[in-house]
Amino acid sequence: MSSSPLVLIVMGSDSDLPIMQEAADILTKFGVPFEMRISSAHRCPQRTAELASGAAARGIRIIIAGAGMAAHLAGVIAAETTLPVIGVPTPGGALNGVDALYSTVQMPGGIPVATMAIGKAGAKNAGIFAVQILALTDTLLARSLNEYRTEMAQEVERKDAAIQPA
Amino acid sequence: MSSSPLVLIVMGSDSDLPIMQEAADILTKFGVPFEMRISSAHRCPQRTAELASGAAARGIRIIIAGAGMAAHLAGVIAAETTLPVIGVPTPGGALNGVDALYSTVQMPGGIPVATMAIGKAGAKNAGIFAVQILALTDTLLARSLNEYRTEMAQEVERKDAAIQPA
Amino acid sequence: MSSSPLVLIVMGSDSDLPIMQEAADILTKFGVPFEMRISSAHRCPQRTAELASGAAARGIRIIIAGAGMAAHLAGVIAAETTLPVIGVPTPGGALNGVDALYSTVQMPGGIPVATMAIGKAGAKNAGIFAVQILALTDTLLARSLNEYRTEMAQEVERKDAAIQPA
Amino acid sequence: MSSSPLVLIVMGSDSDLPIMQEAADILTKFGVPFEMRISSAHRCPQRTAELASGAAARGIRIIIAGAGMAAHLAGVIAAETTLPVIGVPTPGGALNGVDALYSTVQMPGGIPVATMAIGKAGAKNAGIFAVQILALTDTLLARSLNEYRTEMAQEVERKDAAIQPA
Amino acid sequence: MSSSPLVLIVMGSDSDLPIMQEAADILTKFGVPFEMRISSAHRCPQRTAELASGAAARGIRIIIAGAGMAAHLAGVIAAETTLPVIGVPTPGGALNGVDALYSTVQMPGGIPVATMAIGKAGAKNAGIFAVQILALTDTLLARSLNEYRTEMAQEVERKDAAIQPA
Amino acid sequence: MSSSPLVLIVMGSDSDLPIMQEAADILTKFGVPFEMRISSAHRCPQRTAELASGAAARGIRIIIAGAGMAAHLAGVIAAETTLPVIGVPTPGGALNGVDALYSTVQMPGGIPVATMAIGKAGAKNAGIFAVQILALTDTLLARSLNEYRTEMAQEVERKDAAIQPA
Amino acid sequence: MSSSPLVLIVMGSDSDLPIMQEAADILTKFGVPFEMRISSAHRCPQRTAELASGAAARGIRIIIAGAGMAAHLAGVIAAETTLPVIGVPTPGGALNGVDALYSTVQMPGGIPVATMAIGKAGAKNAGIFAVQILALTDTLLARSLNEYRTEMAQEVERKDAAIQPA
Amino acid sequence: MSSSPLVLIVMGSDSDLPIMQEAADILTKFGVPFEMRISSAHRCPQRTAELASGAAARGIRIIIAGAGMAAHLAGVIAAETTLPVIGVPTPGGALNGVDALYSTVQMPGGIPVATMAIGKAGAKNAGIFAVQILALTDTLLARSLNEYRTEMAQEVERKDAAIQPA
Repeated sequence: MSSSPLVLIVMGSDSDLPIMQEAADILTKFGVPFEMRISSAHRCPQRTAELASGAAARGIRIIIAGAGMAAHLAGVIAAETTLPVIGVPTPGGALNGVDALYSTVQMPGGIPVATMAIGKAGAKNAGIFAVQILALTDTLLARSLNEYRTEMAQEVERKDAAIQPA
Repeated sequence: MSSSPLVLIVMGSDSDLPIMQEAADILTKFGVPFEMRISSAHRCPQRTAELASGAAARGIRIIIAGAGMAAHLAGVIAAETTLPVIGVPTPGGALNGVDALYSTVQMPGGIPVATMAIGKAGAKNAGIFAVQILALTDTLLARSLNEYRTEMAQEVERKDAAIQPA
Repeated sequence: MSSSPLVLIVMGSDSDLPIMQEAADILTKFGVPFEMRISSAHRCPQRTAELASGAAARGIRIIIAGAGMAAHLAGVIAAETTLPVIGVPTPGGALNGVDALYSTVQMPGGIPVATMAIGKAGAKNAGIFAVQILALTDTLLARSLNEYRTEMAQEVERKDAAIQPA
Repeated sequence: MSSSPLVLIVMGSDSDLPIMQEAADILTKFGVPFEMRISSAHRCPQRTAELASGAAARGIRIIIAGAGMAAHLAGVIAAETTLPVIGVPTPGGALNGVDALYSTVQMPGGIPVATMAIGKAGAKNAGIFAVQILALTDTLLARSLNEYRTEMAQEVERKDAAIQPA
Repeated sequence: MSSSPLVLIVMGSDSDLPIMQEAADILTKFGVPFEMRISSAHRCPQRTAELASGAAARGIRIIIAGAGMAAHLAGVIAAETTLPVIGVPTPGGALNGVDALYSTVQMPGGIPVATMAIGKAGAKNAGIFAVQILALTDTLLARSLNEYRTEMAQEVERKDAAIQPA
Repeated sequence: MSSSPLVLIVMGSDSDLPIMQEAADILTKFGVPFEMRISSAHRCPQRTAELASGAAARGIRIIIAGAGMAAHLAGVIAAETTLPVIGVPTPGGALNGVDALYSTVQMPGGIPVATMAIGKAGAKNAGIFAVQILALTDTLLARSLNEYRTEMAQEVERKDAAIQPA
Repeated sequence: MSSSPLVLIVMGSDSDLPIMQEAADILTKFGVPFEMRISSAHRCPQRTAELASGAAARGIRIIIAGAGMAAHLAGVIAAETTLPVIGVPTPGGALNGVDALYSTVQMPGGIPVATMAIGKAGAKNAGIFAVQILALTDTLLARSLNEYRTEMAQEVERKDAAIQPA
Repeated sequence: MSSSPLVLIVMGSDSDLPIMQEAADILTKFGVPFEMRISSAHRCPQRTAELASGAAARGIRIIIAGAGMAAHLAGVIAAETTLPVIGVPTPGGALNGVDALYSTVQMPGGIPVATMAIGKAGAKNAGIFAVQILALTDTLLARSLNEYRTEMAQEVERKDAAIQPA
């Protein structure tokens, strides 16, 4: 992806990549330029803060942050910018993502993180939600979203037809 | 609130009103026109579907949906529109909101709901997140958001000073 | 199965098929005609609503709905019909079905969903429960149910005998 | 209530009465004759077994069972009859009903319990679900159910109107 | 095992056998005669009730009951006898035994079930606990228990020594 | 209570007294001499160890241990004696007893703790379970237990009668 | 408290003060100079980062951080310093502190937070643990700790004596 | 490792060794002499108590204790010493470590256990936290810690660079 990214996807560790790739795939599908970064809230806090606080000036409109366990990444990023931040709790570890979910969604009043489902479904939906925001001021994207909805509905119909007795 | 609402706040029951008022208060504070509606995913599904599917045409840009227990409202609304839908799980009932959280956040891939914390903090953050989205294309709002952040930081400083020994 | 289905089995995704087949197998065993459909509460809400609202007129007496994660399917169907709706939470995803359980069972007052256990045991029991309802007005089915109970008890006895020392 | 009850409401303890009264109120409202009994799966197992196994012969069509903590009542009753058994987990105790929910809904394959939400909403829905089953062969009840749905929808509309600005 | 069993091990299904064998192995090791039975609280309730209510007269002193999911077996047995009943929640199903734990341990006041850990450790401890009860009036068993404790402590010491650097 | 106690009730803190009194009341009712002690696994470990290891020599037959939060008391006592140890998880603290339940019941293989329900019902059942063990070799106690069962069943019948319409 | 604080107590909000005062009381009791500050990981991230990163240079040896909900405070502070950071999850909100516990304790490898129990017991223990660290190189503190242990043990003995029959 | 250990790593069973090795690896990396022991709170309580109570006199400064299920080990050790005790909940068993977490972290007021995350990340962080405590009075260790932080940050940067498009 390239040329002035509108969406910044950040993840806390490269082990989150197979999950967060789902978000990237959606953005690619809709033709939304994005940037994908690894940066940890804990291992490189200043770098992460700068990535977040400098995002708006670089033209970033939306940040998607995915992390596991005590997933502070989305909240830490949200604290550094007023851009919309979408959080994706990733599974992994003994609690299998419920820790990441609570750490991401239970933000105290003042600094919101728009939280998606744990894991791949959540990462995919983070990408779609970013497109939905951008589509508010981009009629081509809005049309693409409507087509995507239609395709999803048609896919359900195809699968339904496939299980009917001959 | 009035004159062409940009945000639609929907709740499943009037018992959710004390929670969802937090979102309304934020929108009022930022001068964002909004509309507040009670509509249930289960007791009046068609009305709810129409409220959602007709929202974009009426100029609504963002929908905030709050509900408790098996909270289907946000998901049902998200299924009827490509506008960004923000979900607020409300507490109440024996499981105290963890049911509403899971019912709101664990959306399968394709139809995202941007989920906030359970209860008042979540409703407040839903309002702020709506403003953050609108601020992407409204520099006055963006400035107000920055001021709001500054005020929050200053309030922390004031409270910190208040507990210091004389 | 065929000729005027009495039971409609709906599932949110074809990935739920191996689970929901358990319900179909029971209905087949008892000779109850049924129909099996894939329809999503989120990806094709109108189609799902019509499937539900039109069921009674087509002769359907009972609807079994299976879905995972934020499982809105049973509730959304129950909102569109006064036929008895049986919900089956399916596992899958990081929370392994507890999300689907809460999303299915914690219905607010007014619109009931008769919820079964998570997964295959629940799907099997959904089929049996449908037969139990139909047996209220079908003495042949009632007799079959009693035989089924006897067979189950005998199977326990056989298994018990098998582990006794010679 | 009187004259040949069609529904048997059983609860494990009189402390469950304020919860289970919700089911009774619904049956009264719909004019369905019912019987309300206290009988414990643990303190008087034989009596409970006889209450269940003799129900069909007395003309009972549906059994609603409410209990808390390790709520075995609904399962124990379901084991003694092929009538449809609806389970209501009641809150109370340190786990606030999640124990009763799991004990009621997680029935192994073979003996279904149609489980409702924890507490009053669940008890109310148990009553409605019983009416839905009876309405399959009672067109007057079916009409009443439709009116009830309409009333619920109208009540939502009234509450919605009440919060609109003048 | 043979000659007038003192302990009755009951399990709800033969799928619990690999778990409950741990209890049997302990009883064999301590030379306590026992009987192992499969009987379901739900599929053959009367047989299970008779197994429990007739146990004392047959010389049984302690009953160990293992079951999964909505594990009613131990409670149902405890309701039919005043012999000490030890419950073993077995894993299996989507909730992995937490349902069985709550269904076994959260017995309401009046009818106790002595609950052990979920799974094999719990089944083993059920066997040991039965021996501990019998040892109250059997000095040979008491001595064996003390030797068993000593062996366990020595095994820890051996394992500790094994990981020390040479 | 006095003259050679057969049961030792230990609790980790005097805040557990209102809970553990339920066990004492049962023992008093059945005429079983007991001793009630406060001793903490953490604040006075040696004293607790001695209380446990010396119990058998003093004629104690059964130990009931109640504690909250990370409730180590029952396990620590069980490690010091081969007498049967019954654990009662007490509520209190933010997790409301689920921490105490897991800390008490999930004992690793080798050292069993017979765990009861969280709180008062569990303490009462601990007392009853102790009586059940003692009744194995005390026919008078066995008769009293049977009478107690009969009384419980009669109380259910009285309560059942009390809610019947006149 | 004053003169070159050795311990820094930080909390995310003044609503945490009644909880965190427990830590302060312990430090006062042991004569350890400390500083108490309010600073939020989300509302004033830079200020919080500076508080943490500058602590060592000011002579701070240990940081105690208390926060609720998605409690990022302790982790964010730990990321900015190599001083030992002790985390106290505070209750509050619908999940009653289990969110704060998971957000504090489930730190990924590399940046530890020494987590205490939820709420007042945890805050008190945070103070004691800080004293235990300082006592490693302060024999007077070590002696005070031993006296404190003795007092705790004696208090248990007094409470035990108080419940004994006269 | 050798020559006067400063850190004592204890685990309840050799099955915890693959987890606890992470702590050992960190101490080795930082050149901190340590000792690794297997000792069970339940199978050899006296030995465990002596290991803990004698640690300070042998020059041990910090104890790391790892255990699973009803993990009493860290608490039992903390009760016998005023040295800082770091607890590592290990997964294993049906509850996958949430039992060990609650049993370790929810210590009542008076006896703290500094709890780390469940499993390998927690064991690694236990090692790092021990180093952080020792570094308070060891400038070489403090420098090593800073280098370790720098390396972690650089590793994130390398991984980030590796996923950037060429």
